[in-house]
Amino acid sequence: MTGSLSRFSINQMTVKQLAMPELVDACLELGVPGVGLWREPVRTYGLEATAKLIRDAGLTVTTLCRGGFFTAIDAAERAKALDDNRRAVEEAATLGTEVLVLVSGGLPTGSKDLHGARERIADALAELGPYAEQHGVRLAIEPLHPMYASDRCVVSTLTQALDLAERFPAHQVGVTVDTYHIWWDDRAPAQIARAGASGRIHTFQLADWTTPLPEGVLNGRGQIGDGAIDMREWQGYVEAAGYTGAIEVELFNDALWARDGREVLAETAERFVAHTA
Amino acid sequence: MTGSLSRFSINQMTVKQLAMPELVDACLELGVPGVGLWREPVRTYGLEATAKLIRDAGLTVTTLCRGGFFTAIDAAERAKALDDNRRAVEEAATLGTEVLVLVSGGLPTGSKDLHGARERIADALAELGPYAEQHGVRLAIEPLHPMYASDRCVVSTLTQALDLAERFPAHQVGVTVDTYHIWWDDRAPAQIARAGASGRIHTFQLADWTTPLPEGVLNGRGQIGDGAIDMREWQGYVEAAGYTGAIEVELFNDALWARDGREVLAETAERFVAHTA
Repeated sequence: MTGSLSRFSINQMTVKQLAMPELVDACLELGVPGVGLWREPVRTYGLEATAKLIRDAGLTVTTLCRGGFFTAIDAAERAKALDDNRRAVEEAATLGTEVLVLVSGGLPTGSKDLHGARERIADALAELGPYAEQHGVRLAIEPLHPMYASDRCVVSTLTQALDLAERFPAHQVGVTVDTYHIWWDDRAPAQIARAGASGRIHTFQLADWTTPLPEGVLNGRGQIGDGAIDMREWQGYVEAAGYTGAIEVELFNDALWARDGREVLAETAERFVAHTA
Repeated sequence: MTGSLSRFSINQMTVKQLAMPELVDACLELGVPGVGLWREPVRTYGLEATAKLIRDAGLTVTTLCRGGFFTAIDAAERAKALDDNRRAVEEAATLGTEVLVLVSGGLPTGSKDLHGARERIADALAELGPYAEQHGVRLAIEPLHPMYASDRCVVSTLTQALDLAERFPAHQVGVTVDTYHIWWDDRAPAQIARAGASGRIHTFQLADWTTPLPEGVLNGRGQIGDGAIDMREWQGYVEAAGYTGAIEVELFNDALWARDGREVLAETAERFVAHTA
């Protein structure tokens, strides 16, 4: 059985060629009920203006991407990162979303200490969690594929993300479940169950795995249905774990970005219906 | 404390620009005692000729790369792969190495079933293991980094590799521990201990993790010391697990391949001494 658009959310990055009003128009035209926003385009259009635009259109902001980058060793850099994350929490609250996605950060230059970097993330969450709670925002640690471990995110598996999250209350810190990052991991289904049992699945995102990977491996996330990932299988895991929220499609893909944004959004909505339950 | 060359083995792929006799000459000149060979250049120079050349030079063949590619569904393809792996076992025996490295294979075209692919690997090992034993050769399943899960190797972690290997006797099937593929995995140290406890560390290989990754992510393995991996830390894990064998350096790197092969071998030997204990 195929799905409907009722739980679909388009992550803004998938169609970053659309300016904010174009994105909202396209969502209304296609019947897309939710959007995941990024801080940079929100800043470009204006925070309050974006909040009003989305609210007036009746769209739901499912997540704000992204906070994080907590792994610096230098005290001044760490203070600056925490300040920036407090701003991200405030922006999420203003935009009316409860979920701030966190990309935790890679190894500092010259460091080979993954364990130490992961501990510094925990230190930052201890400060940021209560601040987020005060603003009605939950933090969603996103494990990124292990190919990003050195330069982007030392949290590589759901297991590691939950080991961090569970040091804090679930309404402060949970996880992002993104198929692109975890599909290879035979332990991930059990970790989704673990996350669900403590109410820590704060968002669920889809992207497909296609090869060859492009240089830098950032912008090769496949359109839903084009790759190796069985989306219904992963939807089944999160739903069995009690997740009933939005399902975001977040693609970073040079080929999609080169096309007409509305056309890409329409195609993504079709793929979503065809490949979810 | 830095290391010596006594346990160093140069994997032939690191300096693939050197023809077989050039490789042997360079090893003798630099005092490199071991080589890891690949089937294709062995075939180019001739199997018996290579065996004699290496034997006469007094070098040790630490591994033969590689067998594997067991994940096909089609019966004829599977039979062909098994035949080819029997030839690889025979070649290893002729070359005088006890270790055949296995790269297990990716998802068949159109398949999204990682679990099924892993089971077909087990089926192949059940046939190949006894054949290898008869030839005095041990099979070394190599978990490849999760970024290769779809197109090259569905075995992505040491845990998965050992789950497969432990279905068979240790003198038939063990694992390859390669820093490049497992360095991000906080469970890998415990899995190395697990492998050592059952005598299944059949080879230990070094490569460093550098970014950005190149397109296709195959040929960007970093020279020892250039990246994020603490080689002594991993050497410590395998030695604590009882491994006393050769340490191979295996780099696939376009920049190294573009240079003079002897110069690259000399540099690699220097880096080995500087970064091992």
